[in-house]
Amino acid sequence: MATLEFFYDFVSPYSYLASTRVEALAARTGATLRWRPFLLGGVFKATGNSSPLDLPAKGRHLWLDLERWARRLNVPLRRPEPFPFSPMLALRTALACEAVGKLVPFSHAVYRAAWADGRDITNPEVLAAVATEAGLDGAALVAAAPSYKEALVKQTQDAIDRGAFGAPACFVGDQLFIGNDRLDFVEEALRAAGR
Amino acid sequence: MATLEFFYDFVSPYSYLASTRVEALAARTGATLRWRPFLLGGVFKATGNSSPLDLPAKGRHLWLDLERWARRLNVPLRRPEPFPFSPMLALRTALACEAVGKLVPFSHAVYRAAWADGRDITNPEVLAAVATEAGLDGAALVAAAPSYKEALVKQTQDAIDRGAFGAPACFVGDQLFIGNDRLDFVEEALRAAGR
Repeated sequence: MATLEFFYDFVSPYSYLASTRVEALAARTGATLRWRPFLLGGVFKATGNSSPLDLPAKGRHLWLDLERWARRLNVPLRRPEPFPFSPMLALRTALACEAVGKLVPFSHAVYRAAWADGRDITNPEVLAAVATEAGLDGAALVAAAPSYKEALVKQTQDAIDRGAFGAPACFVGDQLFIGNDRLDFVEEALRAAGR
Repeated sequence: MATLEFFYDFVSPYSYLASTRVEALAARTGATLRWRPFLLGGVFKATGNSSPLDLPAKGRHLWLDLERWARRLNVPLRRPEPFPFSPMLALRTALACEAVGKLVPFSHAVYRAAWADGRDITNPEVLAAVATEAGLDGAALVAAAPSYKEALVKQTQDAIDRGAFGAPACFVGDQLFIGNDRLDFVEEALRAAGR
Protein backbone atom coordinates (compact mmCIF):
# COMPACT_ATOMS: atom_id res chain seq x y z
CA MET A 1 0.00 0.00 0.00
CA ALA A 2 1.49 3.31 -1.08
CA THR A 3 1.43 6.38 1.16
CA LEU A 4 1.01 9.98 0.11
CA GLU A 5 2.46 12.47 2.57
CA PHE A 6 0.84 15.83 1.99
CA PHE A 7 2.78 18.76 3.51
CA TYR A 8 0.68 21.91 3.51
CA ASP A 9 0.46 25.37 5.05
CA PHE A 10 -2.75 27.34 5.51
CA VAL A 11 -1.19 30.47 4.04
CA SER A 12 -0.34 28.69 0.78
CA PRO A 13 -3.09 29.06 -1.82
CA TYR A 14 -1.78 26.18 -3.91
CA SER A 15 -1.92 24.01 -0.78
CA TYR A 16 -5.54 25.05 -0.39
CA LEU A 17 -6.29 23.98 -3.95
CA ALA A 18 -4.47 20.68 -3.42
CA SER A 19 -6.33 20.10 -0.13
CA THR A 20 -9.55 19.87 -2.11
CA ARG A 21 -8.05 17.13 -4.32
CA VAL A 22 -5.80 14.83 -2.30
CA GLU A 23 -8.52 12.71 -0.71
CA ALA A 24 -10.07 11.79 -4.07
CA LEU A 25 -6.58 11.18 -5.42
CA ALA A 26 -5.75 8.81 -2.56
CA ALA A 27 -9.11 7.03 -2.97
CA ARG A 28 -8.53 6.56 -6.72
CA THR A 29 -5.09 5.08 -6.19
CA GLY A 30 -5.80 3.09 -3.02
CA ALA A 31 -3.12 5.08 -1.21
CA THR A 32 -2.92 5.99 2.45
CA LEU A 33 -3.05 9.76 2.87
CA ARG A 34 -1.07 11.43 5.61
CA TRP A 35 -1.81 15.12 6.24
CA ARG A 36 1.29 16.95 7.49
CA PRO A 37 0.93 20.66 8.30
CA PHE A 38 4.22 22.55 8.09
CA LEU A 39 5.43 26.13 8.14
CA LEU A 40 6.14 27.36 4.63
CA GLY A 41 7.94 30.41 6.03
CA GLY A 42 10.39 28.06 7.73
CA VAL A 43 10.92 26.20 4.47
CA PHE A 44 11.58 29.47 2.63
CA LYS A 45 14.05 30.58 5.30
CA ALA A 46 15.96 27.30 5.28
CA THR A 47 16.19 27.00 1.50
CA GLY A 48 16.56 30.65 0.49
CA ASN A 49 13.32 30.44 -1.44
CA SER A 50 10.75 33.25 -1.25
CA SER A 51 7.10 33.99 -1.84
CA PRO A 52 5.96 34.86 -5.35
CA LEU A 53 4.52 37.97 -3.73
CA ASP A 54 8.05 39.28 -3.24
CA LEU A 55 8.23 40.05 -6.97
CA PRO A 56 5.61 42.42 -8.37
CA ALA A 57 5.26 40.61 -11.73
CA LYS A 58 4.93 37.23 -10.05
CA GLY A 59 2.55 38.56 -7.44
CA ARG A 60 0.22 40.01 -10.06
CA HIS A 61 0.24 36.78 -12.04
CA LEU A 62 -0.33 34.65 -8.95
CA TRP A 63 -3.93 35.74 -8.55
CA LEU A 64 -4.73 35.22 -12.22
CA ASP A 65 -3.28 31.74 -12.07
CA LEU A 66 -5.16 30.93 -8.86
CA GLU A 67 -8.42 32.09 -10.39
CA ARG A 68 -7.85 29.85 -13.40
CA TRP A 69 -7.24 26.88 -11.13
CA ALA A 70 -10.24 27.65 -8.91
CA ARG A 71 -12.48 27.76 -11.99
CA ARG A 72 -11.09 24.50 -13.28
CA LEU A 73 -11.47 22.72 -9.94
CA ASN A 74 -14.76 24.46 -9.23
CA VAL A 75 -13.72 25.53 -5.74
CA PRO A 76 -14.47 28.88 -4.11
CA LEU A 77 -11.54 31.30 -3.89
CA ARG A 78 -11.49 34.67 -2.23
CA ARG A 79 -8.32 36.65 -1.75
CA PRO A 80 -7.59 36.97 2.00
CA GLU A 81 -7.07 40.45 3.38
CA PRO A 82 -4.44 40.94 4.54
CA PHE A 83 -2.29 38.55 2.57
CA PRO A 84 0.03 36.96 3.43
CA PHE A 85 -1.19 36.27 6.96
CA SER A 86 0.50 34.34 9.76
CA PRO A 87 -0.58 30.69 9.72
CA MET A 88 1.36 29.89 12.91
CA LEU A 89 -1.53 29.64 15.37
CA ALA A 90 -3.65 27.61 12.95
CA LEU A 91 -0.76 25.24 12.20
CA ARG A 92 -0.02 24.59 15.87
CA THR A 93 -3.72 24.12 16.52
CA ALA A 94 -3.79 21.65 13.65
CA LEU A 95 -1.25 19.52 15.48
CA ALA A 96 -3.40 19.73 18.63
CA CYS A 97 -6.29 18.49 16.50
CA GLU A 98 -4.17 15.66 15.12
CA ALA A 99 -3.56 14.46 18.68
CA VAL A 100 -7.31 13.91 19.05
CA GLY A 101 -7.82 12.49 15.56
CA LYS A 102 -9.35 15.64 14.08
CA LEU A 103 -6.65 17.00 11.81
CA VAL A 104 -8.52 16.54 8.54
CA PRO A 105 -11.85 18.20 9.41
CA PHE A 106 -9.98 21.04 11.11
CA SER A 107 -7.76 21.57 8.07
CA HIS A 108 -10.68 21.71 5.67
CA ALA A 109 -12.52 24.11 7.98
CA VAL A 110 -9.53 26.45 8.22
CA TYR A 111 -8.91 26.43 4.50
CA ARG A 112 -12.56 27.21 3.80
CA ALA A 113 -12.59 30.00 6.39
CA ALA A 114 -9.38 31.61 5.11
CA TRP A 115 -9.69 31.05 1.36
CA ALA A 116 -13.42 30.97 0.67
CA ASP A 117 -15.16 32.83 3.48
CA GLY A 118 -12.80 35.73 4.13
CA ARG A 119 -12.42 35.01 7.84
CA ASP A 120 -9.39 36.06 9.86
CA ILE A 121 -8.01 32.78 11.13
CA THR A 122 -5.05 34.56 12.74
CA ASN A 123 -7.53 35.72 15.41
CA PRO A 124 -7.71 33.06 18.17
CA GLU A 125 -11.42 33.61 18.74
CA VAL A 126 -12.24 33.30 15.06
CA LEU A 127 -10.06 30.22 14.79
CA ALA A 128 -11.78 28.62 17.79
CA ALA A 129 -15.19 29.41 16.29
CA VAL A 130 -14.17 27.86 12.96
CA ALA A 131 -13.13 24.68 14.77
CA THR A 132 -16.25 24.61 16.91
CA GLU A 133 -18.46 24.98 13.84
CA ALA A 134 -16.65 21.92 12.45
CA GLY A 135 -17.78 19.94 15.51
CA LEU A 136 -14.57 20.25 17.51
CA ASP A 137 -13.84 21.74 20.92
CA GLY A 138 -12.42 24.90 19.38
CA ALA A 139 -11.51 26.83 22.51
CA ALA A 140 -9.63 23.91 24.08
CA LEU A 141 -7.76 23.09 20.89
CA VAL A 142 -6.63 26.66 20.26
CA ALA A 143 -5.59 26.89 23.91
CA ALA A 144 -3.46 23.77 23.44
CA ALA A 145 -1.64 25.23 20.40
CA PRO A 146 1.46 26.51 22.27
CA SER A 147 2.31 22.93 23.29
CA TYR A 148 2.81 22.04 19.65
CA LYS A 149 5.43 24.67 18.83
CA GLU A 150 8.29 22.16 18.75
CA ALA A 151 6.27 19.53 16.91
CA LEU A 152 5.61 22.02 14.11
CA VAL A 153 9.29 22.93 13.87
CA LYS A 154 10.18 19.24 13.72
CA GLN A 155 7.63 18.43 11.04
CA THR A 156 8.80 21.41 8.98
CA GLN A 157 12.42 20.31 9.34
CA ASP A 158 11.52 16.81 8.16
CA ALA A 159 10.19 18.24 4.89
CA ILE A 160 13.25 20.48 4.49
CA ASP A 161 15.62 17.59 5.13
CA ARG A 162 13.90 15.60 2.41
CA GLY A 163 14.25 18.38 -0.16
CA ALA A 164 11.07 20.47 0.07
CA PHE A 165 11.40 24.13 -0.95
CA GLY A 166 7.76 25.12 -1.39
CA ALA A 167 4.16 24.09 -0.78
CA PRO A 168 2.30 21.90 -1.15
CA ALA A 169 5.06 19.29 -0.94
CA CYS A 170 3.95 15.74 -1.62
CA PHE A 171 6.10 12.70 -0.95
CA VAL A 172 5.60 9.19 -2.27
CA GLY A 173 8.39 7.46 -0.40
CA ASP A 174 11.45 9.56 -1.18
CA GLN A 175 9.97 11.01 -4.38
CA LEU A 176 9.18 14.70 -3.94
CA PHE A 177 6.57 16.65 -5.89
CA ILE A 178 6.17 20.38 -5.35
CA GLY A 179 2.93 22.14 -6.22
CA ASN A 180 -0.74 21.64 -6.82
CA ASP A 181 0.21 21.46 -10.49
CA ARG A 182 2.17 18.25 -9.96
CA LEU A 183 -0.65 16.15 -8.48
CA ASP A 184 -0.97 14.24 -11.73
CA PHE A 185 2.64 13.12 -11.34
CA VAL A 186 1.85 12.22 -7.71
CA GLU A 187 -0.99 10.07 -8.96
CA GLU A 188 1.29 8.25 -11.40
CA ALA A 189 3.83 7.64 -8.64
CA LEU A 190 1.17 6.27 -6.31
CA ARG A 191 -0.11 3.91 -8.98
CA ALA A 192 3.43 2.71 -9.68
CA ALA A 193 4.18 2.29 -5.95
CA GLY A 194 0.94 0.42 -5.33
CA ARG A 195 1.57 -2.20 -8.00
CA MET B 1 -8.75 33.41 -35.44
CA ALA B 2 -6.88 33.32 -32.12
CA THR B 3 -3.11 33.83 -31.93
CA LEU B 4 -0.70 32.13 -29.57
CA GLU B 5 2.49 34.09 -28.98
CA PHE B 6 5.15 31.72 -27.71
CA PHE B 7 8.10 33.46 -26.01
CA TYR B 8 10.98 31.06 -25.49
CA ASP B 9 14.69 30.95 -24.73
CA PHE B 10 17.01 28.15 -25.77
CA VAL B 11 18.53 27.95 -22.28
CA SER B 12 15.12 27.30 -20.70
CA PRO B 13 14.38 23.58 -20.38
CA TYR B 14 10.67 24.16 -19.89
CA SER B 15 10.68 26.20 -23.10
CA TYR B 16 12.28 23.22 -24.83
CA LEU B 17 9.52 20.94 -23.56
CA ALA B 18 6.86 23.43 -24.65
CA SER B 19 8.50 23.81 -28.08
CA THR B 20 7.68 20.17 -28.75
CA ARG B 21 4.00 20.79 -27.99
CA VAL B 22 2.93 24.21 -29.24
CA GLU B 23 2.50 23.30 -32.90
CA ALA B 24 0.10 20.46 -32.14
CA LEU B 25 -1.70 22.71 -29.67
CA ALA B 26 -2.14 25.43 -32.29
CA ALA B 27 -3.31 22.87 -34.85
CA ARG B 28 -5.88 21.42 -32.41
CA THR B 29 -7.31 24.84 -31.61
CA GLY B 30 -7.04 26.38 -35.08
CA ALA B 31 -4.81 29.13 -33.66
CA THR B 32 -2.05 31.04 -35.39
CA LEU B 33 1.27 30.35 -33.70
CA ARG B 34 3.88 33.06 -33.43
CA TRP B 35 7.35 31.98 -32.28
CA ARG B 36 9.08 34.77 -30.35
CA PRO B 37 12.61 34.11 -29.07
CA PHE B 38 13.53 36.25 -26.08
CA LEU B 39 16.29 36.50 -23.51
CA LEU B 40 15.23 34.93 -20.22
CA GLY B 41 18.21 36.47 -18.45
CA GLY B 42 16.90 39.90 -19.42
CA VAL B 43 13.48 39.00 -18.07
CA PHE B 44 15.00 37.83 -14.78
CA LYS B 45 17.05 41.02 -14.50
CA ALA B 46 14.06 43.29 -15.19
CA THR B 47 11.67 41.51 -12.81
CA GLY B 48 14.02 40.49 -10.00
CA ASN B 49 13.27 36.85 -10.72
CA SER B 50 16.05 34.26 -10.76
CA SER B 51 16.87 30.82 -12.05
CA PRO B 52 15.77 27.81 -9.97
CA LEU B 53 19.43 26.82 -10.14
CA ASP B 54 20.25 29.68 -7.79
CA LEU B 55 18.75 27.67 -4.91
CA PRO B 56 20.31 24.25 -4.22
CA ALA B 57 17.01 22.56 -3.26
CA LYS B 58 15.23 23.93 -6.33
CA GLY B 59 18.14 23.10 -8.60
CA ARG B 60 18.20 19.47 -7.48
CA HIS B 61 14.45 19.14 -7.93
CA LEU B 62 14.52 20.80 -11.35
CA TRP B 63 16.18 17.83 -13.03
CA LEU B 64 13.82 15.33 -11.43
CA ASP B 65 10.86 17.37 -12.58
CA LEU B 66 12.26 17.72 -16.11
CA GLU B 67 12.86 13.97 -16.34
CA ARG B 68 9.26 13.33 -15.31
CA TRP B 69 8.02 15.69 -18.00
CA ALA B 70 10.33 14.25 -20.66
CA ARG B 71 9.03 10.75 -19.93
CA ARG B 72 5.44 11.91 -20.07
CA LEU B 73 5.92 13.77 -23.35
CA ASN B 74 8.22 11.09 -24.71
CA VAL B 75 10.89 13.58 -25.76
CA PRO B 76 14.65 13.11 -25.41
CA LEU B 77 16.31 15.09 -22.62
CA ARG B 78 20.00 15.28 -21.83
CA ARG B 79 21.40 17.71 -19.31
CA PRO B 80 23.64 20.22 -21.09
CA GLU B 81 27.18 20.62 -19.80
CA PRO B 82 27.83 23.28 -18.80
CA PHE B 83 24.45 24.51 -17.63
CA PRO B 84 23.29 27.21 -17.72
CA PHE B 85 24.88 28.25 -21.00
CA SER B 86 24.62 31.55 -22.88
CA PRO B 87 21.80 31.45 -25.42
CA MET B 88 22.64 34.90 -26.77
CA LEU B 89 24.24 33.92 -30.08
CA ALA B 90 21.55 31.34 -30.83
CA LEU B 91 18.77 33.82 -30.01
CA ARG B 92 20.19 36.53 -32.26
CA THR B 93 20.73 33.96 -34.99
CA ALA B 94 17.11 32.89 -34.54
CA LEU B 95 16.03 36.42 -35.43
CA ALA B 96 18.29 36.30 -38.48
CA CYS B 97 16.52 33.07 -39.44
CA GLU B 98 13.13 34.70 -38.90
CA ALA B 99 14.06 37.37 -41.45
CA VAL B 100 14.37 34.61 -44.08
CA GLY B 101 11.32 32.64 -42.91
CA LYS B 102 13.30 29.90 -41.16
CA LEU B 103 12.72 30.60 -37.48
CA VAL B 104 10.80 27.44 -36.69
CA PRO B 105 13.13 24.82 -38.22
CA PHE B 106 16.12 26.63 -36.72
CA SER B 107 14.51 26.71 -33.28
CA HIS B 108 13.71 23.00 -33.31
CA ALA B 109 17.22 22.21 -34.50
CA VAL B 110 18.83 24.28 -31.75
CA TYR B 111 16.63 22.78 -29.05
CA ARG B 112 17.43 19.27 -30.23
CA ALA B 113 21.16 20.03 -30.39
CA ALA B 114 21.26 21.61 -26.92
CA TRP B 115 18.76 19.46 -25.02
CA ALA B 116 18.86 16.07 -26.71
CA ASP B 117 22.21 15.73 -28.47
CA GLY B 118 24.60 17.38 -26.00
CA ARG B 119 26.03 19.83 -28.52
CA ASP B 120 27.57 23.16 -27.54
CA ILE B 121 25.39 25.69 -29.33
CA THR B 122 27.31 28.57 -27.74
CA ASN B 123 30.12 27.72 -30.18
CA PRO B 124 29.54 29.64 -33.45
CA GLU B 125 30.85 26.79 -35.61
CA VAL B 126 28.65 24.22 -33.90
CA LEU B 127 25.66 26.53 -34.16
CA ALA B 128 26.30 27.08 -37.86
CA ALA B 129 26.62 23.33 -38.39
CA VAL B 130 23.34 22.71 -36.56
CA ALA B 131 21.60 25.23 -38.83
CA THR B 132 23.22 23.84 -41.95
CA GLU B 133 22.11 20.30 -41.06
CA ALA B 134 18.59 21.71 -40.81
CA GLY B 135 18.86 22.85 -44.43
CA LEU B 136 19.74 26.49 -43.74
CA ASP B 137 22.76 28.57 -44.69
CA GLY B 138 24.26 28.23 -41.23
CA ALA B 139 27.45 30.20 -41.65
CA ALA B 140 25.69 33.22 -43.17
CA LEU B 141 22.94 33.21 -40.56
CA VAL B 142 25.34 33.02 -37.61
CA ALA B 143 27.41 35.77 -39.22
CA ALA B 144 24.28 37.93 -39.39
CA ALA B 145 23.50 37.47 -35.69
CA PRO B 146 25.13 40.73 -34.45
CA SER B 147 22.67 42.74 -36.55
CA TYR B 148 19.82 41.40 -34.43
CA LYS B 149 21.10 42.54 -31.05
CA GLU B 150 18.59 45.37 -30.76
CA ALA B 151 15.70 43.32 -32.11
CA LEU B 152 16.27 40.74 -29.38
CA VAL B 153 16.34 43.42 -26.69
CA LYS B 154 13.11 44.86 -28.07
CA GLN B 155 11.33 41.52 -28.24
CA THR B 156 12.41 40.72 -24.69
CA GLN B 157 11.19 44.09 -23.48
CA ASP B 158 7.81 43.51 -25.10
CA ALA B 159 7.34 40.36 -23.02
CA ILE B 160 8.49 42.15 -19.85
CA ASP B 161 6.15 45.08 -20.49
CA ARG B 162 3.25 42.64 -20.79
CA GLY B 163 4.01 40.94 -17.48
CA ALA B 164 6.32 38.01 -18.27
CA PHE B 165 8.68 36.94 -15.48
CA GLY B 166 9.79 33.51 -16.71
CA ALA B 167 9.81 31.12 -19.66
CA PRO B 168 8.11 29.90 -21.64
CA ALA B 169 5.69 32.82 -21.63
CA CYS B 170 2.57 32.34 -23.73
CA PHE B 171 0.17 35.11 -24.59
CA VAL B 172 -3.35 34.78 -25.91
CA GLY B 173 -4.16 38.44 -26.47
CA ASP B 174 -3.34 40.03 -23.12
CA GLN B 175 -3.72 36.80 -21.17
CA LEU B 176 -0.33 35.59 -19.91
CA PHE B 177 0.56 31.99 -19.09
CA ILE B 178 3.95 31.13 -17.66
CA GLY B 179 5.37 27.65 -17.96
CA ASN B 180 5.19 24.44 -19.91
CA ASP B 181 2.84 23.28 -17.15
CA ARG B 182 0.24 25.86 -18.12
CA LEU B 183 -0.23 24.83 -21.76
CA ASP B 184 -3.57 23.24 -20.90
CA PHE B 185 -4.79 26.64 -19.73
CA VAL B 186 -3.39 28.14 -22.94
CA GLU B 187 -5.40 25.62 -24.90
CA GLU B 188 -8.60 26.57 -23.06
CA ALA B 189 -7.93 30.25 -23.71
CA LEU B 190 -7.34 29.64 -27.42
CA ARG B 191 -10.57 27.67 -27.69
CA ALA B 192 -12.46 30.44 -25.92
CA ALA B 193 -10.83 33.14 -28.07
CA GLY B 194 -11.54 31.24 -31.29
CA ARG B 195 -15.25 30.93 -30.66
